[in-house]
This record gives sequence, C-alpha cells and structure tokens, in this order.
Amino acid sequence: MFDRITIIGVGLLGASFALALKKNGLCRSIAGCGRNRENLLRAKERNIIDSFEQDPAAACKEADLVMLSTPVGSFTNLAKKIAPALKKGAVLTDVGSVKGTLVREIEKIIPEDVHYIGGHPIAGSDRSGIDSANAELFKKAKCIITPTENSDLAALEKIQKLWKAFGSEIVTLSPEEHDRIYAAVSHLPHLIAYALVNTVADMDRSYLAFSGRGFRDATRIASSSEELWSDICLLNRDNLVEVLAVFQKNLDKLDQYLKAGNSDSLKAEFRKARALRETIG
Amino acid sequence: MFDRITIIGVGLLGASFALALKKNGLCRSIAGCGRNRENLLRAKERNIIDSFEQDPAAACKEADLVMLSTPVGSFTNLAKKIAPALKKGAVLTDVGSVKGTLVREIEKIIPEDVHYIGGHPIAGSDRSGIDSANAELFKKAKCIITPTENSDLAALEKIQKLWKAFGSEIVTLSPEEHDRIYAAVSHLPHLIAYALVNTVADMDRSYLAFSGRGFRDATRIASSSEELWSDICLLNRDNLVEVLAVFQKNLDKLDQYLKAGNSDSLKAEFRKARALRETIG
Repeated sequence: MFDRITIIGVGLLGASFALALKKNGLCRSIAGCGRNRENLLRAKERNIIDSFEQDPAAACKEADLVMLSTPVGSFTNLAKKIAPALKKGAVLTDVGSVKGTLVREIEKIIPEDVHYIGGHPIAGSDRSGIDSANAELFKKAKCIITPTENSDLAALEKIQKLWKAFGSEIVTLSPEEHDRIYAAVSHLPHLIAYALVNTVADMDRSYLAFSGRGFRDATRIASSSEELWSDICLLNRDNLVEVLAVFQKNLDKLDQYLKAGNSDSLKAEFRKARALRETIG
Repeated sequence: MFDRITIIGVGLLGASFALALKKNGLCRSIAGCGRNRENLLRAKERNIIDSFEQDPAAACKEADLVMLSTPVGSFTNLAKKIAPALKKGAVLTDVGSVKGTLVREIEKIIPEDVHYIGGHPIAGSDRSGIDSANAELFKKAKCIITPTENSDLAALEKIQKLWKAFGSEIVTLSPEEHDRIYAAVSHLPHLIAYALVNTVADMDRSYLAFSGRGFRDATRIASSSEELWSDICLLNRDNLVEVLAVFQKNLDKLDQYLKAGNSDSLKAEFRKARALRETIG
C-alpha cells in the first residue's frame, strides 16, 4: 500500500503501528524517528523499524506516509520542521487524542501537495513504550478519522484502508465533533482521576493502602503521562472547561442531596447513571 | 468452628461467604434468610445453604453466628427484628461498607449476651447475586474488622480466624477510622463515577459509544446498585461531604490552571497524582 513509511515517535502507539504494518505487509520499509537514540536502537534490533534517523526532516524526505505518534503537544512544531522535506503526494497522519484546531493548524503548515488526514485510534492505555507494543493493539478498536473539507479523497481512502487492515472499526468525525466528544468521554475522566488521587493525598496518603478494585479501576488513568495529558487538556481547553462545568453541576446536585439526606433524589441520580453505564458493558 | 450459621441476605457476598465456610469446613449447617424466596430456593438447590427461613427472627433462633449480608441500609431494622431471638453467646457480624455510627447503633440494639463484631471484606464488585458467588472471593482480599471498646475478645478472635481461614488479610480499624478512610477511597469514587456518567448524559448520550477502556474503567462502579449506594452514602454522609469538598477544591484548582493555560501547574498536579497512583499498582 505504501513504499516507505516514517514513524515519528516510536512509543506504544508508533511501535504498535509499525508492527501492524509489518504483520499486514502494508509497506516495504519503515523508518523510525525520535529523540531517544537508545529507544530507536532497541526498536531496530527488534525489527519494529528497519532504519532510523533522528532529524525529523531528514527522516521524512523519502516517505510516502508519515505518522506522527509523538505526544500531541509536539505536532505543530514537528509539522513545521518536516513541511519543507515532505515529498509531493506524501500522506501525513497521526494518532493524536486532540483534533479540532490542531488539525486546522497542521493543514495550514504543510505544503498544498501533501495530504494530511487526522486519526485517533481508541487504543493504548496508561502503559507506554515499545515493550507494551503489539501488532494487535488496534484490532477491534475504534479508529476515529477526522477529514475536513480540504482533505484529499484518495489519501483519506488509503488511511481508512490501512486501519481497516489492522482490524479497526473506522468512524469518521469532523475534527470539532471529535474534540467535543472526547472532552466528555476521555479528557474529563483523566482530569477527574488525577483530582481523585490528589484528594486522597490531601486527606491522608496512607488511606491508599485500603483501596479496593473499585478505586484502582476508577483511577487507573491517573497513571498516564503528565506531559502528554497536560498538552491534551490544554489543546482541548474550551471543550474541557465546558464539560467540566457540567460535571461540577452534577456533583453539586449530589452534594446537596447528600446534605439534605434526600435519599430518593440521590437514588434517582444513581439509577440514571447505572442504567446508562450498563449500556456500554 | 461454628455449629449453625445463619446468613441474612444470600447475594454475592452472603453466598460467597457460605461457599467459603463449606469449603473450609467451618460449620455444620448454614441457614439462609432473605426476602426473595426464589433466590433462597436456588441457593438451596445449589447447596450454597442447607435450609432457609424467610422470617429473620425465626432464622436466627438457633444460630451460633449470624451474618448480615443484606444492603447495609437494612442493618438496624434487621438487628431490631432478630435481637429478641438471638441465642445467649451468639456472635453477630456483617459485611457492610459503612461502620461508624452504624456499629454503635447495632451494639445498642442487640442483647448484652450477644457479641457483635463488624466486618467489611474489600471484595465484591459491580456484579451481584449468587450467580457470581464463589468460595475464593475473599482470598487475598483485605478484610477490615472494626471492634470497639465493647467487643468481646473471644468473639473477635473467632471472626478473625474465620476470615483468615478464607485467605483474607485482616486489618483492624475503629468503626470511625474505617468510615473516614472508605469515604475517600470508595464512597467518593462511586459518587464521582455516577456524576461522570450523568455528565455525558447531559452532554449527549450518543457520546458514550465513542468511549474507550479508560472511560469504562473509570465508570465501572457506576453500574453498582443505586439502592445499596444511596444507603452507603447517606450512612457515611458527614465524612463523604467532607472529602467531596476536598475533591471539589482539587478540581477547581485544575479548572483554574486550565483556564489560565498554566501548563506547568497542571503538569505538576498530574505528576503528583501519577506518582501516588503508581504506588498501588
């Protein structure tokens, strides 16, 4: 499908993308690019990538497809660095958790004859690094593709085919829809998990030893990288601030019912949430 | 260890308790008690219990040990019903998620020659019912025992031995300590999970279809019974209101950093939470 692919950022997602490409025979060669030379050496030793190059522009010179899988906060800088080096007709894509204005910025940065198609596989976890990478990471996972009115249809089709070959379920959203949705179902939950752990720290950190599976599940995402998630939250700030206000209203409601000893209203709120939660298994 | 044990409330915890007793040969016979006759019949058919009796007082008449494993909101009423029927020297225990004032009330209700020892195994989940019950549910789980200055030492020792035989790790706390701790590590997370799901409902319930593993983990406990959890929250209201205020402060802080675009402070809060979260695996 592609001759030469360059993956900038060979971590959990980038390395899993490489492994899935190889498993499905979708390219001739994969070049890795990243700031950590040790990591690139290990990735090459393990045949996750075929070669590497630490300078992003040099790494992308001959690429038919460039994947941005570094932390999303670095995308605009990277796009600026590689823009002059990108081949005519090359496709640029990414796995970033934020789209919205970011997609619009990248579209402005890259040359007109390069085709950018944003992507966001709903995979990965609190883990990171190539040790957790695997070719099946994207199998049965949703992959959100966020074309715009400027997108090249042939490039869009290629990107969709690629994720389909990995076994992903493709969903197409506008960059703006994507960010509204993920503010609610991903970025807010991360913010809450961090705040919940810090609440226990404020009370008495020794309390943590008493926590059970409920707490561990509820706060698993608080193990996520602070570098990555502060960027995500700030890049989707407007949506996140809006949904956070809705959450605070819901919490205030529960607080009032608690203080009033209003069992019926508390129960009704819990019931509404339970019924909805049960729909997603 | 015991001759006749009565389990009031044959659900996930009660039935698992029965199965663990049988597996470890800790009693001669187990009587079940509950409001749902069908459930008791099924439990008897499956040899989880040996007999049953729907009237709580009648069910407890001959018991050496009575286990309360109904929803915690029913404990004081049940204690009142069974108090006149309890044998001299009988031991009363429970698996309730709230202790504090509840333990003090039960101590007042039961006769002086009956020994109450509160317990709270940190097991179970969002699932419920005898279909999920198993003899190993309490293995390697913490079990909090909450004796008071009034507790009979021989009864305390018996209850501790019993949970040890199940493979649980015993921790002894005062009822008040227990409730302060579990307000933070269990009751607050439930409240938050319910509010988080309702927030997505307020935004657009179709967003749920886009959620990934992070959201599912973070909200798994929102599948918990609203009957049970509204009782738990109200029975531990004072502690829960206090810890909720600490959480709201933490969330307000993140909200302010977001609005100010303060990346460093946001990152510092996330880092603090991540470091602490990683200590519990």
